Amino acid sequence: MLTIALPKGALLKDSIRLLQSAGLDFSAFLEPGNRQLQILDRQERAKALLVRNSDVPVYVEYGQAQLGVVGYDVLREKTARVAQLIDLRFGGCRMSIAVKASSPYRSVLDLPAHCRIASKFVHCARDYFHNLDLPVEIVPLSGSVELGPITGMSEAIVDLVATGQTLRENGLVEIETLFDSTARLIANPLAYRINADGISELIEELRQSVTQAIAATC
Amino acid sequence: MLTIALPKGALLKDSIRLLQSAGLDFSAFLEPGNRQLQILDRQERAKALLVRNSDVPVYVEYGQAQLGVVGYDVLREKTARVAQLIDLRFGGCRMSIAVKASSPYRSVLDLPAHCRIASKFVHCARDYFHNLDLPVEIVPLSGSVELGPITGMSEAIVDLVATGQTLRENGLVEIETLFDSTARLIANPLAYRINADGISELIEELRQSVTQAIAATC
Repeated sequence: MLTIALPKGALLKDSIRLLQSAGLDFSAFLEPGNRQLQILDRQERAKALLVRNSDVPVYVEYGQAQLGVVGYDVLREKTARVAQLIDLRFGGCRMSIAVKASSPYRSVLDLPAHCRIASKFVHCARDYFHNLDLPVEIVPLSGSVELGPITGMSEAIVDLVATGQTLRENGLVEIETLFDSTARLIANPLAYRINADGISELIEELRQSVTQAIAATC
Repeated sequence: MLTIALPKGALLKDSIRLLQSAGLDFSAFLEPGNRQLQILDRQERAKALLVRNSDVPVYVEYGQAQLGVVGYDVLREKTARVAQLIDLRFGGCRMSIAVKASSPYRSVLDLPAHCRIASKFVHCARDYFHNLDLPVEIVPLSGSVELGPITGMSEAIVDLVATGQTLRENGLVEIETLFDSTARLIANPLAYRINADGISELIEELRQSVTQAIAATC
């Protein structure tokens, strides 16, 4: 039976809606007070695992799930060995560099060498500044990254920005976008290659749903 | 002014109570709907930062906070350069190895070489099995680690256990304790050495509160 890893949080609702378009119903995950981490769809065609966004590529890479839905930001940060199949077009956000609005920095090249950058996305941040040839110290945080510049621990942050409200509330401004991110459908490379459990058929259905959704909004 | 990093979550209430015993009131963090990440105590003697448990040692190491309260498990996992000052005796839990109750494994030495161990505490798990001379593959997860054995991705997990309810609900049993953990008071080593902002005085007051609390429960 096919297993699909779904991400907790912001991408879950749209992920479930997408799978419903292919006849798979995992809406029980959305019920208030749900504590289940794995459920079968009603026709018992497929199973879904409810895991953290950043764990989706792990379950798919290790083959415990053949398919998964995850943000492109996580794929960039984790560099998991999974096949990226479809840009699902929802969950849009961007990986940005932000500084205090009251700081003198208005572009990345204004940042002083050896300054500190706080981030949950340590690899993305390190790669970006390495490619710029700007030596910086990355301060790894796991939450509330905006406290970095506010407390003076870091000159800037690299973080995911959706509406920008958190930045504004904390007196920060974006000065550069590293990349845009949306949700992606990923697959275990082996399962995809050998077409395990009719995975290709489901992928094709999902691809058509996404194409139709794009056509409907144009 | 002294800055103290406090951990969100399970340790917050006891941390605030401890600081109240030394005349510092940060109970505003406990008000429902609180969105503030930093507050001053009423007499403006000290400031508190509200950060993730795993970020407390970062703020203290970088000197943005001179003191912090954090679980010993985080200190073991992060190996931050901070001074450990007082065992605060609250937030008791243990780092354990657990397997499926239906598995044949009843001790760590029953685990097969090259088996998979899922954990959020990658360093603790790696060190432990390295010292046992048992080669294993650590699968890094960021949440719901109990899904590892349930889905068959891993033979065991290394995770923090308080009451054991999550393990029981998921059909897992503990087979070994790596270490016991409680909340600790930590300090920035330099701030501690130079006694910045009268830090020693506050540490002494907190030490007396802890000693009195222990005496009261004996």
